[in-house]
Amino acid sequence: MTITITAFERSPDGGRGLARDTRVRWALEEVGQPYKVRLVSFRAMKEPAHLAVHPFGQIPTYEEGDLALFETGAIVLHIAQRHAGLLPEDANARARAVTWMFASVNTVEPPILDLQNALFLEGDKPWHAERLPLVKDRIRGRLNQLSVRLGDADWLDGAFSAGDLMMASVLLRLRASGILDEYRNLAAYVARAEARPAYKRAFEAQLAVNTGKPSSG
Amino acid sequence: MTITITAFERSPDGGRGLARDTRVRWALEEVGQPYKVRLVSFRAMKEPAHLAVHPFGQIPTYEEGDLALFETGAIVLHIAQRHAGLLPEDANARARAVTWMFASVNTVEPPILDLQNALFLEGDKPWHAERLPLVKDRIRGRLNQLSVRLGDADWLDGAFSAGDLMMASVLLRLRASGILDEYRNLAAYVARAEARPAYKRAFEAQLAVNTGKPSSG
Repeated sequence: MTITITAFERSPDGGRGLARDTRVRWALEEVGQPYKVRLVSFRAMKEPAHLAVHPFGQIPTYEEGDLALFETGAIVLHIAQRHAGLLPEDANARARAVTWMFASVNTVEPPILDLQNALFLEGDKPWHAERLPLVKDRIRGRLNQLSVRLGDADWLDGAFSAGDLMMASVLLRLRASGILDEYRNLAAYVARAEARPAYKRAFEAQLAVNTGKPSSG
Repeated sequence: MTITITAFERSPDGGRGLARDTRVRWALEEVGQPYKVRLVSFRAMKEPAHLAVHPFGQIPTYEEGDLALFETGAIVLHIAQRHAGLLPEDANARARAVTWMFASVNTVEPPILDLQNALFLEGDKPWHAERLPLVKDRIRGRLNQLSVRLGDADWLDGAFSAGDLMMASVLLRLRASGILDEYRNLAAYVARAEARPAYKRAFEAQLAVNTGKPSSG
């Protein structure tokens, strides 16, 4: 069955790979599954046809036959459970990889989203300059702990997994702030992730959309 | 094998059931699995023994034989995958239930965490009063969409699932703000969740810890 995902017709990041469809493209590339992409405009995302698939009016979605999913973490987990390459075989190791997926979206990403809100939704507020250091320090609080846990390892728990795919994708969002580069091992971890051929293919595919070339999907 | 979870020795909420161990207790009660509880102090949470299990120094954790997990969503999913009662049998319905788990922690919970930060970490800041309505409106943005999707249904997608367990737990945190009660159907949804015998047992167990009675766990 054909897999169809949705992506921004025009990503707010201009093709830097930070939109969440990149995470799903990457997962599909890691497991070697072809996919099609349906591009949606900001207006279409808030219309009934898209809301029927994604109640929060966002991208990406994932459709395959009768199955329609939203929420990047769930889509990546679904792909990882169906196809070899993103989760270990051992049941306990598999549960730990899933733990890192949830840690990425529920523990590490929220303070990073807070920074994005501070920059893009509250950048013109009188408190912006004074509040920004607090927001950044909350990110550092998490990254200090993550950096200690990763240590000198290549990946968070043994071989590369869907947990690393999600964590690296979340950390990528920090690069522009300079905070990622404060952590030598986390910056190297993200660079290792970006060097994976599957990531590169995913990145190029989303870039092609955002530079006006036809999608490879 | 014995399941052991961790919980606050003294919960910051004084036993209102908002600490995340309640979510794990609830999942274990839904599937009928007994468990033990190890209480940890705030100091112990930041010490090496606990950080070895939970790199972010939080509760809950889940230990069963050789397996050690952290991150509430991952623990609840692990319980739901191992024992009947929290996920549908049908593969597509199962994937959709997992989607609601991720939606609860990655789409609905972040603006709610932002409100908690605004109240507890920035309550003394000069911008507090002026910024609070922005934070609350971001929550309403999500709840408007969630309310539309739920409509008059009892649960988010068919029978009660781990997705509802997580979503109701996230929404519960909003009650004190008054925002939950702005949404008749969401407030009724949370009330239905709280009326479940398994939730009541979980709530009572955490309350016993926080009122000094021995835990039933």
